[in-house]
Amino acid sequence: MTLPFIIQSRDKLARQGELHTAHGVIRTPAFMPVGTAATVKAMTPEAVKSTGADIILGNTYHLMLRPSAERIAKLGGLHKFMHWNGPILTDSGGFQVMSLSKLRKLTEQGVTFQSHLDGTTYELSPERAMEIQHLLGSDITMALDECTPFPATEEQARESMHLSMRWALRSKNAFKPRDGHGLFGIVQGSVYPALREESATALMNIGFDGYAVGGLAVGEGQELMFSVLDFTVPFLPKDHPRYLMGVGKPDDIIGAVQRGIDMFDCVIPTRAGRFARAYTEAGERNIRNAKYAEDPRPLQENCPCPACKNYSRAYLHHLFKCEEMLGPMLLTWHNLAFYQVLMQNIRNAISEGDLDHFAESFLAIYRDTTDED
Amino acid sequence: MTLPFIIQSRDKLARQGELHTAHGVIRTPAFMPVGTAATVKAMTPEAVKSTGADIILGNTYHLMLRPSAERIAKLGGLHKFMHWNGPILTDSGGFQVMSLSKLRKLTEQGVTFQSHLDGTTYELSPERAMEIQHLLGSDITMALDECTPFPATEEQARESMHLSMRWALRSKNAFKPRDGHGLFGIVQGSVYPALREESATALMNIGFDGYAVGGLAVGEGQELMFSVLDFTVPFLPKDHPRYLMGVGKPDDIIGAVQRGIDMFDCVIPTRAGRFARAYTEAGERNIRNAKYAEDPRPLQENCPCPACKNYSRAYLHHLFKCEEMLGPMLLTWHNLAFYQVLMQNIRNAISEGDLDHFAESFLAIYRDTTDED
Repeated sequence: MTLPFIIQSRDKLARQGELHTAHGVIRTPAFMPVGTAATVKAMTPEAVKSTGADIILGNTYHLMLRPSAERIAKLGGLHKFMHWNGPILTDSGGFQVMSLSKLRKLTEQGVTFQSHLDGTTYELSPERAMEIQHLLGSDITMALDECTPFPATEEQARESMHLSMRWALRSKNAFKPRDGHGLFGIVQGSVYPALREESATALMNIGFDGYAVGGLAVGEGQELMFSVLDFTVPFLPKDHPRYLMGVGKPDDIIGAVQRGIDMFDCVIPTRAGRFARAYTEAGERNIRNAKYAEDPRPLQENCPCPACKNYSRAYLHHLFKCEEMLGPMLLTWHNLAFYQVLMQNIRNAISEGDLDHFAESFLAIYRDTTDED
Repeated sequence: MTLPFIIQSRDKLARQGELHTAHGVIRTPAFMPVGTAATVKAMTPEAVKSTGADIILGNTYHLMLRPSAERIAKLGGLHKFMHWNGPILTDSGGFQVMSLSKLRKLTEQGVTFQSHLDGTTYELSPERAMEIQHLLGSDITMALDECTPFPATEEQARESMHLSMRWALRSKNAFKPRDGHGLFGIVQGSVYPALREESATALMNIGFDGYAVGGLAVGEGQELMFSVLDFTVPFLPKDHPRYLMGVGKPDDIIGAVQRGIDMFDCVIPTRAGRFARAYTEAGERNIRNAKYAEDPRPLQENCPCPACKNYSRAYLHHLFKCEEMLGPMLLTWHNLAFYQVLMQNIRNAISEGDLDHFAESFLAIYRDTTDED
């Protein structure tokens, strides 16, 4: 197996284990901070590592535009370029082509688009997506798919999914297997159980090192997302990692782990940190809120991050009022640390067979916002 | 003596020593990074310390506006507020009132002005400047002065200097002496030797823990600045620290140390870092320059900072092209490290009686810009 996955404990549908890659072990369930343009925004790699992150995600779309996969390869690959020596998962670029680029033209062959930065025309195909991720040196490569828009009729979802399955096969054929490097397929099919089953079966017939659930976290809401997971996860192989792309908030992650998901990525903790929003056990806090101006308490008691260990809420509030860069730096650090502590607690709870209780305790306190305290 | 200053070696006019404060020892000649709004921009305090900085500077003007000296005092003082446990020097606020505020009204009593942020009216007097710096908990307090504009006629410079000397006496009377905390006076007198002498004598008669040379680095150019130092420093006491305010570039600092200056502060390394300009032994580099796009070399060989140890010029270039926060973070770090290495080399050279040779070697390679390489 090119990407050994060892499940160490199970708690109902949830699993706790290790995924072994060329650049080290990923403890699962895992949250992957997003390092879009070869940097996790506002963080050094050492700081990212210190939060407990085992793996980060890089975005093929952004990197193919700037500075280009060829240039990164010439400079020694993405790990060396950005000084992150742990595992890296790269997406295929398909999602951002659809959400960011201009003048897209989608054909059987692939997609032609103009860069949102300077209008330059690029082509992305399953073969090119594999080539780019190979040039970057990704530990985990994602197959190129079309992220089916939401909502979609069953007919639209079927057609889109079928294209993604043909691209999945071409991705597999173009991928160069190496020890410690793996290729993940992506299940599509929108909210339709029959399509999700057909997609999962098609991917398993091709054979991948891991299986992602795509087409979610696109505005469908938590209830519908959980419902799709409820019927989709049972179609996936039991011995391979499962990755829910683009998810999510802490309560999304807990619910998805309870439904059998092993891996997550999301821009929420980093983006929120830049906009003064902190995740805490009590819920989201907007540190710009005037009530924090003289609050001498740490953002969260017992949090191991420097924002909480070294500073008051009043200081963090001050930094954002003054638009000082240290504000986003510290709040990003905190949010990533909060997410990694959450993942560690989830892993512990699974290994102790106690996940439902942990989830219940967490969600009893956690609020969307606590600023109305 | 409330602020013991021990000169350990001399090389012509240059001195190498230690200034002992309540929060630790400052090795001199010293460069103080500027932490305007209770943060050295884009840096954690741990990162600032790691560059070799012994002391940082805080700006009274900015802090009195936001979050206010009273609030900082309530939160435990500036050291605790910003999590910097080393010495802090605060300016008196006078310079920024003159350069940043609106609708200023200067009287014998002090200055009334409107905040550049929201138009609120504030008053600053020698007594209030002492009170604010006391509330902040500054290790080194600066007397309130009027920074004489450049150019000024001898009559204008005399009148301004006389006001500053009356304010210096009121500052001294209002300052509360404590062990490890000191008050510095500021010599004014523009480019006029007789006025500088009169000012220095007036300050020595009042008696201060250190003596700053003010009214320079305001557009007069290096040659004139050095010439003012040449005739001003001999008027200053031999056994007290001398501080050249707002200076400067590496070559300014070397020349001023050769003329007997012990302390410096300047926004140049931090500001330059945010705007992609790096200081190196070869001179200033603008890392946005296209010639760095594929340059695999470190910014500077043998530099101990993370920007140089961990990354290529190509990566730093990429970060600035993408407007990623890590770009300013790393280049600020580098510039502060470069300045501190420079200060250590200067201190070593003085103790070895070799400063002129060091200066000559440094300036033989150093250029204003090396981007035309």
